[in-house]
Amino acid sequence: MKLNTESNFDFSGGIIPPLVTPMLDDDSLDLEGLGKLIAHVIAGGVNGVFILGTTGESTNLSNKLKHELTQKTCELVNGRIPVLVGITDTSIVESVKLANTAKEAGASALVAAPPYYYALSQQELLEYYTDLNQRLPLPLFLYNMPVHTKTVIEPKTVAELSKLSGVIGLKDSSANSVYFNKLIHTMKGQPDFSLWVGPEEIMAEAVLMGASGGVNGGANIFPELYVALYKAAKSGDLEKVRKLHDQVMLISDSLYTIGKYGSSYLKGVKAALSVLGICSDFMASPLHNFGKSEKDQVAKAVENIKSMIG
Amino acid sequence: MKLNTESNFDFSGGIIPPLVTPMLDDDSLDLEGLGKLIAHVIAGGVNGVFILGTTGESTNLSNKLKHELTQKTCELVNGRIPVLVGITDTSIVESVKLANTAKEAGASALVAAPPYYYALSQQELLEYYTDLNQRLPLPLFLYNMPVHTKTVIEPKTVAELSKLSGVIGLKDSSANSVYFNKLIHTMKGQPDFSLWVGPEEIMAEAVLMGASGGVNGGANIFPELYVALYKAAKSGDLEKVRKLHDQVMLISDSLYTIGKYGSSYLKGVKAALSVLGICSDFMASPLHNFGKSEKDQVAKAVENIKSMIG
Amino acid sequence: MKLNTESNFDFSGGIIPPLVTPMLDDDSLDLEGLGKLIAHVIAGGVNGVFILGTTGESTNLSNKLKHELTQKTCELVNGRIPVLVGITDTSIVESVKLANTAKEAGASALVAAPPYYYALSQQELLEYYTDLNQRLPLPLFLYNMPVHTKTVIEPKTVAELSKLSGVIGLKDSSANSVYFNKLIHTMKGQPDFSLWVGPEEIMAEAVLMGASGGVNGGANIFPELYVALYKAAKSGDLEKVRKLHDQVMLISDSLYTIGKYGSSYLKGVKAALSVLGICSDFMASPLHNFGKSEKDQVAKAVENIKSMIG
Amino acid sequence: MKLNTESNFDFSGGIIPPLVTPMLDDDSLDLEGLGKLIAHVIAGGVNGVFILGTTGESTNLSNKLKHELTQKTCELVNGRIPVLVGITDTSIVESVKLANTAKEAGASALVAAPPYYYALSQQELLEYYTDLNQRLPLPLFLYNMPVHTKTVIEPKTVAELSKLSGVIGLKDSSANSVYFNKLIHTMKGQPDFSLWVGPEEIMAEAVLMGASGGVNGGANIFPELYVALYKAAKSGDLEKVRKLHDQVMLISDSLYTIGKYGSSYLKGVKAALSVLGICSDFMASPLHNFGKSEKDQVAKAVENIKSMIG
Repeated sequence: MKLNTESNFDFSGGIIPPLVTPMLDDDSLDLEGLGKLIAHVIAGGVNGVFILGTTGESTNLSNKLKHELTQKTCELVNGRIPVLVGITDTSIVESVKLANTAKEAGASALVAAPPYYYALSQQELLEYYTDLNQRLPLPLFLYNMPVHTKTVIEPKTVAELSKLSGVIGLKDSSANSVYFNKLIHTMKGQPDFSLWVGPEEIMAEAVLMGASGGVNGGANIFPELYVALYKAAKSGDLEKVRKLHDQVMLISDSLYTIGKYGSSYLKGVKAALSVLGICSDFMASPLHNFGKSEKDQVAKAVENIKSMIG
Repeated sequence: MKLNTESNFDFSGGIIPPLVTPMLDDDSLDLEGLGKLIAHVIAGGVNGVFILGTTGESTNLSNKLKHELTQKTCELVNGRIPVLVGITDTSIVESVKLANTAKEAGASALVAAPPYYYALSQQELLEYYTDLNQRLPLPLFLYNMPVHTKTVIEPKTVAELSKLSGVIGLKDSSANSVYFNKLIHTMKGQPDFSLWVGPEEIMAEAVLMGASGGVNGGANIFPELYVALYKAAKSGDLEKVRKLHDQVMLISDSLYTIGKYGSSYLKGVKAALSVLGICSDFMASPLHNFGKSEKDQVAKAVENIKSMIG
Repeated sequence: MKLNTESNFDFSGGIIPPLVTPMLDDDSLDLEGLGKLIAHVIAGGVNGVFILGTTGESTNLSNKLKHELTQKTCELVNGRIPVLVGITDTSIVESVKLANTAKEAGASALVAAPPYYYALSQQELLEYYTDLNQRLPLPLFLYNMPVHTKTVIEPKTVAELSKLSGVIGLKDSSANSVYFNKLIHTMKGQPDFSLWVGPEEIMAEAVLMGASGGVNGGANIFPELYVALYKAAKSGDLEKVRKLHDQVMLISDSLYTIGKYGSSYLKGVKAALSVLGICSDFMASPLHNFGKSEKDQVAKAVENIKSMIG
Repeated sequence: MKLNTESNFDFSGGIIPPLVTPMLDDDSLDLEGLGKLIAHVIAGGVNGVFILGTTGESTNLSNKLKHELTQKTCELVNGRIPVLVGITDTSIVESVKLANTAKEAGASALVAAPPYYYALSQQELLEYYTDLNQRLPLPLFLYNMPVHTKTVIEPKTVAELSKLSGVIGLKDSSANSVYFNKLIHTMKGQPDFSLWVGPEEIMAEAVLMGASGGVNGGANIFPELYVALYKAAKSGDLEKVRKLHDQVMLISDSLYTIGKYGSSYLKGVKAALSVLGICSDFMASPLHNFGKSEKDQVAKAVENIKSMIG
């Protein structure tokens, strides 16, 4: 990662959970839950936290809540690990405002997916990120999330943007490992530009092939497991990788498949945290938390996973 | 349209331009331009104005600017015609806040497309709009815009939602006329639920087949033409329809095809208004106004169109 | 339409049903059914028949069956109306072979959608159709069918291709009326290049705005209705258009919505023909004809439609 | 892999190149080139050949050519390694005919992607493959290729189909490694159902995580490299994996990125084979082989790759 005088942390790899946003209702935080969640993941050995990503339901929150979450998270983390703040917004003005709040609160870096109403071309992505980056008080991670933003940040565009001071890495949630390997190949002369993978089902292999680490939703629930898997992959211990990866696949297969609709992963993570007594499972509109029957399934799945992963 | 004691206007059809948002820079309105634009379209005979739609670059504006635009537009319109306010947002809390500002400012109705980060299922759309509608102080138009929201509000879902008090119509910008005819067929027993068509290239035929009217971008520039075409279609004067429709197609073909990228329509409208001295052509990020060469083409196209439509 | 010495027919508009393919099993024709179907639509006043389109399940048939169907249809029609033969194939060699069979059998023209495995660019479409057209013994209609071919034949590409001798028109099944109006506008200086619309829900308005006619699946079942609607639209009789269009919408709404999956239109048409005793409802893999319960619904819908349309 | 009395070969993993189809013109094979290509890949140590896949331009070939290629390939291979024959077709009748030719010619197994005109649902995929499998004289590999077939064969559907006698594995060309890991997890109790990965950029990691092997286009050109990479991954030699994977990424980055359009990979492979004197680079319509300028770039890239990989 580039030397960055703006950033108060240096982190070179590992597991950074994309935190869920614990809420009491549509416009108030579950602060107690947030505190417990942060304590839980720090105890689990994670290398940072990323708030206001897709797992954090960022786009569904009011601006007031986003700023408040940013301040409270930085307070609660209190400098122990880096805090990354998602500033993805269709309005660049709002992105910059939130970035300034993040800076003041003591966050380490920012993460921004493309504005997601229009499907932007590569040239438009270049212009957008160049413009955004100039206005930011903290270093920036790009965030590739094509299913929601309707566009891929192509490796050539990433290479171009990596030349800008302040653009320090990319998180990829595309699940497309051909794309990710092309990124690794394209960026391999720039070791200070770090590449992170979203989906936990491919974290192990991405790290084996050169990724910096994982930004995996399951690390909200079972942080030690993801940290251990990351370390096994980083050190090339294939036997351990296979064993721990199987456990991650069990989580994916039993916890993220409950209920219908595309958001079952999100609901599964939040319901599991609620079952474990960590935080509320309230979800912001247009999503809804699970009903009793699905939550019972989640409880059973969590019990089973716990007995498996010891 | 349902009798609505909340609404200070009764409008049953016609042309409602989706106003562009005149801006001086990323976060300030061109108030002089806004005033001229409103005067221009009212002089042209339109039946209302719709602010903060796709043509109004709604998703690219800060919240502050959206509230300010809502207040200023209502002030400038000053009750002469209905003002419809777009409240589309991925956060329902922000949608409701803006709706309240709209109500206080004297707007007549609200317009909301589905939250556009996730691709919602029909069941999720039903729940979302039911929840939203309950929280709104003004009647609501649904807004079908699949290319940006990744979902279609299916006719059955529209029929279901139309039973809710306060849900008074739908604007369709899908360009899919099979869908639109299915809507007309499905809703024909409910004459107080009005159906509006976005793309001006199909406004005439939609009105011929039963649409209430058009929400057409070109009506920012040449409001009389669109009003005249609407009236011709409404009265079944096919000869006049064909003549005026040809002029609309000339606008579409010569003005909305300049420059590359999907947003050439938007840029064309705003550049034409600037050429005509009505308002600034500044565009909010991630879009950009045309450079000199494209603007010269716009000027030439506007000249040509004016000479054609007399 | 261009004067075409290769073609034995001159047709300038009207209704051309995309015939279903009556089958006894996966690889044999229901010749009796085919004969009845042809007699039925000719008695209904149609202006031609189009075999081997999407409604004809073309892509699901063996090559042997396609050639046989072409020969038998031409024999049965016996010169009374033009026969158009769909030659859409991912292999140009197979398209040309079938075109030659069509020519020998006495067909009037050919219809080809883009090869549908790759999503071709506009340049690739230009090259493909130029190459194909050179090898054909009969005039060619382009066939725009983006949902299946993953590409739109853009108006500029159509304009370019229309300059080739032998390319005489286009059938559009996109349902996108903005696209269709752009085509009409682009091609209006070339009255001998005809434009046809697929979806029957928009046939009336397309003809009102300048289309040559409809290639509508429902005209297999109720040919008189579609012919009457076409004539009403062509002559500008709006009152009659609205009355007959309502009947077409009733068919669409009650007959093409039975069963699940995207192919309910196709199954509805074939099941209705079976109910009416015209031909078998066997469908080629990977589609399947309706079971008893859906077929009962079809029978009821047909009864209801017949009582409505008199 | 299941013991299969129909199949004359037992293969449990490795590299199976999806052979290009060497052609002299649109409807004739370059038999000399085919012979050289087969000799080249067998000398390179591959574990089988797969003809008539996407890389083999299968959908663009006439039926006559497909049958001829099947016979000639089996003759030329002459039992030294297994021959897999792609029977993907939108007509099940044609698929079965080709399967019978493959059986008679001595092929080992068949490979079928979903029929690709309609986007089939999971239920329709289940019914299609069940029906197809019953009619086949040889064991079947499923072929997941969503970009071309518009549908994903979901893990649950694969699990269901794997219960059918004769369905022995799956080739995945989706590039979606989350999907692939879910497949591995779902199928791990069935070691005789083998999972193969298409894109060479992710072959190494897929094998590390449990894939049986790669069906990689680049193995047409440099078979030893892919065989060596497979073996390194299979044996868990991470250092070697990284070194050889870098070489594969160099091929991907320098050879498959020449020219525009989605088919640059396909053209790159065929042009490289032509440059190496192995076979003709003629491509079937609607694709076209490279012009002189692109072919010069290919020659340079091949030279560079050869010097790198020693």
